Amino acid sequence: MTTPAPSKLALVPFVSVENMMRIVNTIGPARMIAEIAGYIEADFLRWDQFDKTPRVASHSKEGVIELMPTSDGETYGFKYVNGHPANMARGFQTVTAFGVLARVDNGYPVLLSEMTILTALRTAATSAVAAKHLAPRDAKTMAMIGNGAQCEFQAIAFREVVGIDTVQLYDVDPEATAKAVRNLAGSGLQVIACDSSEDAVAGAQIVTTCTADKQYATILTDNMVGPGIHINAIGGDCPGKTELHRDILLRSDIFVEYPPQTRIEGEIQQLDEDHPVVELWQVISGNHKGRVSDSQITLFDSVGFATEDFSALRYVRDQLDRTGCYVELDMLADPDDPRDLFGMVRRAKEKS
Amino acid sequence: MTTPAPSKLALVPFVSVENMMRIVNTIGPARMIAEIAGYIEADFLRWDQFDKTPRVASHSKEGVIELMPTSDGETYGFKYVNGHPANMARGFQTVTAFGVLARVDNGYPVLLSEMTILTALRTAATSAVAAKHLAPRDAKTMAMIGNGAQCEFQAIAFREVVGIDTVQLYDVDPEATAKAVRNLAGSGLQVIACDSSEDAVAGAQIVTTCTADKQYATILTDNMVGPGIHINAIGGDCPGKTELHRDILLRSDIFVEYPPQTRIEGEIQQLDEDHPVVELWQVISGNHKGRVSDSQITLFDSVGFATEDFSALRYVRDQLDRTGCYVELDMLADPDDPRDLFGMVRRAKEKS
Repeated sequence: MTTPAPSKLALVPFVSVENMMRIVNTIGPARMIAEIAGYIEADFLRWDQFDKTPRVASHSKEGVIELMPTSDGETYGFKYVNGHPANMARGFQTVTAFGVLARVDNGYPVLLSEMTILTALRTAATSAVAAKHLAPRDAKTMAMIGNGAQCEFQAIAFREVVGIDTVQLYDVDPEATAKAVRNLAGSGLQVIACDSSEDAVAGAQIVTTCTADKQYATILTDNMVGPGIHINAIGGDCPGKTELHRDILLRSDIFVEYPPQTRIEGEIQQLDEDHPVVELWQVISGNHKGRVSDSQITLFDSVGFATEDFSALRYVRDQLDRTGCYVELDMLADPDDPRDLFGMVRRAKEKS
Repeated sequence: MTTPAPSKLALVPFVSVENMMRIVNTIGPARMIAEIAGYIEADFLRWDQFDKTPRVASHSKEGVIELMPTSDGETYGFKYVNGHPANMARGFQTVTAFGVLARVDNGYPVLLSEMTILTALRTAATSAVAAKHLAPRDAKTMAMIGNGAQCEFQAIAFREVVGIDTVQLYDVDPEATAKAVRNLAGSGLQVIACDSSEDAVAGAQIVTTCTADKQYATILTDNMVGPGIHINAIGGDCPGKTELHRDILLRSDIFVEYPPQTRIEGEIQQLDEDHPVVELWQVISGNHKGRVSDSQITLFDSVGFATEDFSALRYVRDQLDRTGCYVELDMLADPDDPRDLFGMVRRAKEKS
């Protein structure tokens, strides 16, 4: 049976995984991450315009499902994202995600997009934006502890945005490291597989921790962190999940995305509720100094915030015409007479 | 360019508006509403199993965009829904919606569905479930004040589930009433268009109010409500939006879905915070009496709750095999090795 084509109002552009991969490969991963970093920075600079709220989490013994909404008054966005540490062993992704942008003035969605790949891109872009403002100016070597799905995106982001030329990799599973080494061949980075996290951090000016255990873990111990280092801690992102020893936190100047969320989910859940932290947007906007000395330890305690997803979705929306990588979904009922929803359904039958 | 077909894990069944209309027309609107009512009742009977939270609303001067999540521990669901009273005059729907079900154990979405039509069906089904337990046993006539998009669904639900045989319609806009009269031809209901809300309520045992103004309105005044009536108030559903005069509330026994949400959004926002109300699930489960006398005024102060959307989505999921009315969306990135997201993206380029 056939029905008349739905009105344009009913159609929402949809970016599938396949089309997201086409967008990434058309633009190039490094350039795309750098461009998303630009959108993220631009949105951090207008921080006050955003409705901000901690994500809405539904926890279970296996993991968490979260909704992350925000709005800049003109556009509304949200991401659906799960985090299930045991998924990998069962052949599923630890994190999958999709997101939506909508018009605030009429509530109509204007974009539905896969966000598993896009979250990896925006997380790397956010880390790189923070490091641009916080890492030692001459940082060339980054240690990466945890070589899972996020690893290569981080490496490429730090090369493109921060200017590193070497990554030193370590993972408890050597196969993960071997995978990252393969994938980063030809990236322009010198890639060194290490046998321990101590070896990985040796000589590094930046340390990225990105592991997925849902428990209080200690990926970095205090003696591994020398003066002057920038720590990019992205694996601690839900209650009970941290990566750094508490003593490291006490020696660091701590920068966060949105304190009400980070105090629940980030490394700083190990600290007192009033432990001083600086909001990243304050540094980007010049209201607060980032790195002030060569011996300072800076820590970006990143948990991922809704505005970053908003920035990434905004970026994808702006690539639709440029790349043509989307299809339109008949997702919104749009009767000729808005009050005649019932008649629309009935007429669909008559016309079939 | 082509890429290999995504794995089955990456695919999410999607019910478009067109396919939702096919499902409705295949099953029949009245039967489908009755079946959804069965799902809603079943879920109200296991109320304790659900994670319940007031919806997460983003308000603007034009309207509201809301996310309504819930979970029964096995399945997670949420609805995206907007409410923009000025939309109709601009040719848009006041309310559009879509929703998702996901597995709690691994966080993977298992259904994406339009919910503009489905919300109309579930709202009518919920109203009918409440009336089945609260309306006078011999109710045959329902007044309907407000003849917009929800009107016909309510009428059909009350015929199918409650057993009414007559609807008396009134709307400030006679064209809305005329539309409802046309659409209800052949429904088995006697349909009477009235010139005033007073005429519409005359002789009715049930009064449904369903208007869309975002302001404190008085659709029903105290003198229009006689003893023994059941009021089904579904239009007051956000802060500042009510339909009934406060005096009516004070004369009524009030039944609600989820008090923390209804006190913010429902008619009872006009009352003290501790004004007694009964939760509908308590009545359905027999823990609390519904109608106890012929002179009692019962009021279902309905704002729509996440579990009802969950029930409706659960119903739709169960119709997928039966109707075949869906397509599969490539929405979840699913690399062969879950840690190799980057490699998946890169290989998509090589294969293209």
